[in-house]
Amino acid sequence: MAITKGISVTILSDEADDIAQAIHQKMGENSDYCLVNGTPLIDIALVTSSPKAVDTADTQVLLADPDLAAEIVLECHSLRWLQSTWAGNAPLLNLAKTDYLLTGLKGVFGKLMREYVFAYLLQHARSVSDFNTNQRANPPIWKAIPRFPLHGQTLGITGLGNIGEALIPVAHAFGMNVIGLSKSGKSVSGTEKMYTTEALVEFAQRSDHVVNLMPDTPATQNLLSYDFFRALKPYSVFINAGRGSAIHEEALLTCLNKQCFKHAVLDVFKQEPLAPSHPFWHHPRVTVTSHTAAESQPSDVATVFLDNAMLFVSDRPLRYLLDFEKGY
Amino acid sequence: MAITKGISVTILSDEADDIAQAIHQKMGENSDYCLVNGTPLIDIALVTSSPKAVDTADTQVLLADPDLAAEIVLECHSLRWLQSTWAGNAPLLNLAKTDYLLTGLKGVFGKLMREYVFAYLLQHARSVSDFNTNQRANPPIWKAIPRFPLHGQTLGITGLGNIGEALIPVAHAFGMNVIGLSKSGKSVSGTEKMYTTEALVEFAQRSDHVVNLMPDTPATQNLLSYDFFRALKPYSVFINAGRGSAIHEEALLTCLNKQCFKHAVLDVFKQEPLAPSHPFWHHPRVTVTSHTAAESQPSDVATVFLDNAMLFVSDRPLRYLLDFEKGY
Repeated sequence: MAITKGISVTILSDEADDIAQAIHQKMGENSDYCLVNGTPLIDIALVTSSPKAVDTADTQVLLADPDLAAEIVLECHSLRWLQSTWAGNAPLLNLAKTDYLLTGLKGVFGKLMREYVFAYLLQHARSVSDFNTNQRANPPIWKAIPRFPLHGQTLGITGLGNIGEALIPVAHAFGMNVIGLSKSGKSVSGTEKMYTTEALVEFAQRSDHVVNLMPDTPATQNLLSYDFFRALKPYSVFINAGRGSAIHEEALLTCLNKQCFKHAVLDVFKQEPLAPSHPFWHHPRVTVTSHTAAESQPSDVATVFLDNAMLFVSDRPLRYLLDFEKGY
Repeated sequence: MAITKGISVTILSDEADDIAQAIHQKMGENSDYCLVNGTPLIDIALVTSSPKAVDTADTQVLLADPDLAAEIVLECHSLRWLQSTWAGNAPLLNLAKTDYLLTGLKGVFGKLMREYVFAYLLQHARSVSDFNTNQRANPPIWKAIPRFPLHGQTLGITGLGNIGEALIPVAHAFGMNVIGLSKSGKSVSGTEKMYTTEALVEFAQRSDHVVNLMPDTPATQNLLSYDFFRALKPYSVFINAGRGSAIHEEALLTCLNKQCFKHAVLDVFKQEPLAPSHPFWHHPRVTVTSHTAAESQPSDVATVFLDNAMLFVSDRPLRYLLDFEKGY
């Protein structure tokens, strides 16, 4: 039976206007996003950044930032589907309401994340800031500075899933080996070995540099603590682009001060924005990047939403469905 | 017939001691570098950084920095083979003496060069220095800064040969397209299109970012001039890691000041070290990196020399033989 009825959606996001515009643009460009009788797939009922503006009684489909949606979702008794604009969805997964379909934003972060991770790994491998310092000296200093090639080193990825897999071909192209750590420890193509959290220290010892991409779940709270940071190497760069909750902050600072490892590049924090007085901002061996490692673009959000909307109207399984029990 | 006679070599280099040590170490570790009767393949006759110390009358084999060798090579009447420690060998190729085998150092630079090039491309793609500035502000600034993903962009490589080919798999892993320019314009696997110097402007127009790797030959002098730099884009990063002679310096500065392109990352210069008063040091949109993009390690020099020495004693063709006529 041909589908003739579109979806009425409420967009609740800090970038609601841009997302709405991207949806209109994509529907205009691509006839796949029209129903057989010419009806648009999507009717945008409301575009807002204010949770209070949402019609909680009747809204069936939300496209929303999870922190904003969390303020009203318990009252949304008609809600059938919520497409999140984020990869991490703890604000919604932690609530008691589980009687709706919650889909995450996936498949768009890998290409951003790999540029972030290698920008900072290479920044250290090539001593970029030391060369900059020499250039700014008066007189400027012409001098070779030691470099620490990535070639031949091992990249460890904690929370190796969907996003982390996008790093593997790049690591290989630079001649690096890759090992991973995940809840299941099940094998991932392109890795030399996968570890579970029980083997976290062995994993850290085997890594030259570590990128954390673990989601915010009860099991990952403060998982990266003293034992982990102590097991890194004096030349190791540690990058956190998962969630801030995985880091034991005091352990990180203590181990950094003891020179257990070289540098921490931190994109995510227990509390965001990071308070101006927080020691991370002021530590000479910490880089802070304001939760921007893999910020989705409104056009990415629009694409994932429209593709899922097409599945939704045809009663097919949605992509990137989240599991309330597992918490991711 | 089994080979029973090794090679007596003079090492003339600023890093002569380290190279000699690397040769001894590799011969000790690897029995392939011994002759059948147990004689070492290599007998190191002299280890020096002073051209004057070389026995010019009798030396048959030199392992040398080309700038140092150029001071004495005309007097080396017994010279049969010179293994250079550099990739670029203009100091020797420009001399009248051509009656010996001159081999370059190759096959070791690609893995260093690709880390250099992508360190700086990603530095700009991810606005690394702007994030650093925000972190150092008082109070520090938590803010997203626009990023310019490499994904989907086109990397142009001028002088695409041996070294440049090592960039291609990395570019592909980041989702970039690659085009190249070379003297012959002959096809290179992994590129979308190859250009010759006649089509330099079209090549520049097709590129989002350009890396120059052209050698120092009469044909490349000032080849990258106004027409080239004008054809780049306001967001383009230009990296020179070939030789300084290819750049028309005034054209580069003029076009940078007119914002024809975004930033120049310069590793090599017409005169090195770059004079402290040179405008490149002080220009806010120029990065200077003191000819370190792909500095070979003594162990790389030792490996290439030993492999070639094995060919030399068995009268087989040497690898990385340079052509005095072509000039590379």
